[in-house]
Amino acid sequence: MGSTGIKRRGIMFVLSSPSGAGKTTIARMLLASDPAITMSVSFTTRPMRPGERDGIDYHFIAPEVFDAMHRRGDLLEQATVFGHRYGTPRRPVDETLRAGRDILFDIDWQGTQQLKHSARADLVSVFILPPSWAELERRLRSRAQDSEEVVLRRMAKAADEMSHWPEYDYIVVNRQVDESVASVTAILAAERLRQGRQIGLPDFVTSLSAER
Amino acid sequence: MGSTGIKRRGIMFVLSSPSGAGKTTIARMLLASDPAITMSVSFTTRPMRPGERDGIDYHFIAPEVFDAMHRRGDLLEQATVFGHRYGTPRRPVDETLRAGRDILFDIDWQGTQQLKHSARADLVSVFILPPSWAELERRLRSRAQDSEEVVLRRMAKAADEMSHWPEYDYIVVNRQVDESVASVTAILAAERLRQGRQIGLPDFVTSLSAER
Repeated sequence: MGSTGIKRRGIMFVLSSPSGAGKTTIARMLLASDPAITMSVSFTTRPMRPGERDGIDYHFIAPEVFDAMHRRGDLLEQATVFGHRYGTPRRPVDETLRAGRDILFDIDWQGTQQLKHSARADLVSVFILPPSWAELERRLRSRAQDSEEVVLRRMAKAADEMSHWPEYDYIVVNRQVDESVASVTAILAAERLRQGRQIGLPDFVTSLSAER
Repeated sequence: MGSTGIKRRGIMFVLSSPSGAGKTTIARMLLASDPAITMSVSFTTRPMRPGERDGIDYHFIAPEVFDAMHRRGDLLEQATVFGHRYGTPRRPVDETLRAGRDILFDIDWQGTQQLKHSARADLVSVFILPPSWAELERRLRSRAQDSEEVVLRRMAKAADEMSHWPEYDYIVVNRQVDESVASVTAILAAERLRQGRQIGLPDFVTSLSAER
């Protein structure tokens, strides 16, 4: 085909949204359909919830272990949410990007800001919004395991989180999950086609420009 | 749905490529599948080719008419190629963009540069590349109506045109036409989801940010 398999550095692909906007479902569907992107697994000090698996949903660790990683500079970003700590380990991210694979980050606006500053890598950020307040509240209340206090606290946090939508590169309103997955897939496909980020350009092309 | 149908200004979507890279086929397939984008029809002083239709492929006009339009500032971009003049009329473009519709431009690197400077609008540019030199030559030779001299001249022009690929936002290598149409469609879909360009954001979202 004339392709020489030129290496590229992977894209850091950030999905943020308030809790209840459907981001986790969208992320899972994207990961299932695209073998070229993997999930960044965060470390957290919060207790494991029913159905979660250590090392897959999060790495569940003790607060002292988290503090030690943080002090050593092993975290690309970290935040405290409702008294629990969350952080992204630096090494697996660097290794994945260097191998030319993309990484999906499921982090909040604080994490996104820190990632932009601490990582010199190529970051693309997408904010997932619920279609309406009423729909968001309905989704938050449908988690039977949560108390009214937790729901209200989460609504307040959602409003704060959503106020940061203008800081993101792309905005997807999650009306229909299939449509939203298609949108996020299109964004990732387009970003891979950006000039300077492309893999496998024919040799004669790269030689045609004095700029490279 | 909570959507208020917020108006947006359309995107100027530029496709450039050397002659023979398959851009025209890609443009036609994109236009056929996406009712939200229309083609910008250029004015030209070159003779009509067999199969072309006036007002659809180009507006075919006399050199004096072209000069008058150019002098009045009615052209967003214009270029002379092989002794013939080509130009994009300003008014239909402005009207389409103001109506919130996107426009596809099939222009070369010179036209793209001029469009960037003369139009203050939102421009997204895509360069279509052939998979190899050999394939490009094969495609240029398959146009039976052209003489050897025309083919050689077009090969030289193709090399010049392709040297400008790093000036474009996106690069699509046209190996398979269906794949390339999917790529161009993804780029357009993603660009419509860019923050600040989105239509139909829920009201509660825009009110959540002090930045707007």
